[in-house]
Amino acid sequence: MYYIGFDIGASSIKAVLARDRQIIKSGVRDLPGDLENLLLALIKMHTELIAGLGHEEIGGVGFGLAGAMDLERKIMLNSPNIKYLNGQPVKELLEGRFRGHRLKIEHDAHCFLLAEKEAGLAKNMKNVFYLTLGSGIGGAFMINGQIVAGSHGAAGEAGHMIMDMEKYTGWEELGANKFIKNILGVGSAEAEQRRRGGDKKAEAAFTHLGKNLGVGIANIINIFDPEAIIINGGISATAGMLWPGIEEGVDKFVVSPAAKKTQILLSELGQFGGALGAAILVEKQGL
Amino acid sequence: MYYIGFDIGASSIKAVLARDRQIIKSGVRDLPGDLENLLLALIKMHTELIAGLGHEEIGGVGFGLAGAMDLERKIMLNSPNIKYLNGQPVKELLEGRFRGHRLKIEHDAHCFLLAEKEAGLAKNMKNVFYLTLGSGIGGAFMINGQIVAGSHGAAGEAGHMIMDMEKYTGWEELGANKFIKNILGVGSAEAEQRRRGGDKKAEAAFTHLGKNLGVGIANIINIFDPEAIIINGGISATAGMLWPGIEEGVDKFVVSPAAKKTQILLSELGQFGGALGAAILVEKQGL
Repeated sequence: MYYIGFDIGASSIKAVLARDRQIIKSGVRDLPGDLENLLLALIKMHTELIAGLGHEEIGGVGFGLAGAMDLERKIMLNSPNIKYLNGQPVKELLEGRFRGHRLKIEHDAHCFLLAEKEAGLAKNMKNVFYLTLGSGIGGAFMINGQIVAGSHGAAGEAGHMIMDMEKYTGWEELGANKFIKNILGVGSAEAEQRRRGGDKKAEAAFTHLGKNLGVGIANIINIFDPEAIIINGGISATAGMLWPGIEEGVDKFVVSPAAKKTQILLSELGQFGGALGAAILVEKQGL
Repeated sequence: MYYIGFDIGASSIKAVLARDRQIIKSGVRDLPGDLENLLLALIKMHTELIAGLGHEEIGGVGFGLAGAMDLERKIMLNSPNIKYLNGQPVKELLEGRFRGHRLKIEHDAHCFLLAEKEAGLAKNMKNVFYLTLGSGIGGAFMINGQIVAGSHGAAGEAGHMIMDMEKYTGWEELGANKFIKNILGVGSAEAEQRRRGGDKKAEAAFTHLGKNLGVGIANIINIFDPEAIIINGGISATAGMLWPGIEEGVDKFVVSPAAKKTQILLSELGQFGGALGAAILVEKQGL
C-alpha cells in the first residue's frame, strides 16, 4: 500500500509518495498566494505522484499544515504564515477535492516529529523537542515516546515565544529566515550566497541568527530537559555557520549542568521529512 | 502513619506534618545563611513537628529543594538561589542527620505540583504547568497525568527562560520578587505595604510585574498548551494586582485562539503546598 503526504509550509508545498515509511517519489512547489490555487496545486501534485498506481493501492492522504487548528473540527484558527487559511474549514475543503480517499490532517511540526520517531533520529528516544527552522520556527515535542498535541491541539508553538520585552518580538523573528530578511532585505538563498561570497554583513547576520537560536534552544532545554533537540527545515543548510552560536547559548544559559548535555541534532530526513510524516500519519491512523 | 515534608526555598524553610494528604502541623523559618545552620534548622523543625509521636508512627521525611540536582546521585548541581548547596551531596548530608528515617528528595516545584495533583486543583487534570512565584520563578509540569522529570532530572526551569535579548535577562528577574526589589529596593512585603498605602511607584512596579508575568505565561501556553496553569508562591498575595497584566499577556501573545482558553488558577494549597508535596512524595514512594 502507498500513502501520500503533503507538507504545506510558509513558502512551499512538499509532497511525497511513501511506502513502508520510505519516500518513493517526491515533489515541491512554491506556496500559491490564495486558497483556490493551493487546492489546485495539491490536486496536481497528487495526480503526478499517483501516476501509474491503481486507486486501490493508495491507502490515504495526509496533510501537515502550519498554524493553530481546531483539531476536532479541523478548522484553521490562526496560521500566521499562511493567512488565507485562517477561518477555513480545512478538512471539508480537502474532502471536497480528494473524494474517495482517507484523509488525515495535522500540525506540520507534529508530522515532522512523527517521521523522526518512525523513520529518523528519534526512533529510540523518549523525550524530544523538534524544531523546524525555515521562514519561521515551528515546534513539536514528545514525552515518554508520545507526541503531545496539547489540551487544545496547539502545543509546540515555540516560535512564538516572546524573547524581547521592548518590542515583544517572538523567537521566529529573531531565529529564522525572517531575521535574515529583515537585516539583509533578501531571502535566505541569496543571503547564503552573499555570505559564501565573503560579504561581511551577511556573515554577521548569520552569526547573530545562530546566537539568537542558541538562546531560544537554551530556553527550551531549561523548560523541557529533553534528551535531544532535533532541527530540520530550510535553515539546516547553513547549520555549520549557526552551530557556534547554538553551542554558546546552551553553554551560557542552560541552568542545569546535566541538561547541558542535551544532544542537538540535525535531522537526516531532509526537506521531505514533514511530508513523509504526513504520509505515516495516515498509514498509522484510521480516519 | 505520619509523614514529614520540607520545602527548602530561596528565602525560607517550610515544614509540615501530614497524614492522609492533609496538613496536621506546620512551621516556617527563614533560610539560614550556611549549610550547617540549614541542617540544624531542619532537625529542629523536625523535632518540633514530631513531638508526642512515636518513631514507628513516622513513615518518612521528604525534601523539596530549589535548584538543578543530579537526581540519581542527589547532588545539587546548581541552585541559583541557595548557592551554598552547590556541589553538595544533599542526600548523604541529610541521611547523616535523619538516621533511621526513610528520606526522599525532589525538586521543590515538582513537590508543589505533586501536592496539587494529589490534594489540590490538579486532581482531575492531565496537562498542567505549575509556577511557584516568589523570590524567583520555579516550574514543573505534568503531561497525561504524569509529572515530567526531564531526561536529566532538570525539567521545568521556566524561570530561567531568557526574555530580553539585550541583557539576556531571565524571566524570574522580570516576573518575580527580584523584579520588585530591583525597582523599589525593598522586599515584597514592604513593597506591597507601600502599594496599599497609595505609593504610585510601587503600584507601577506591580503593574509592570503583572505584564512581565503575562508574557512569560503566554510563552508557556504557546509551547505546552496545557489545560491549566496553576500559580503558587509568595506573590500569590498580590495576585489581584497582577491579574490584568497576566490576562493581557495571554490575550495578546497566545497564538492559538483555542489555547487562550487555558485556565490560570491560583493554588488553594497556600504556602505549605510544597512541603505537603514533599510529605506526599515520601508517602507514595519507597526509598
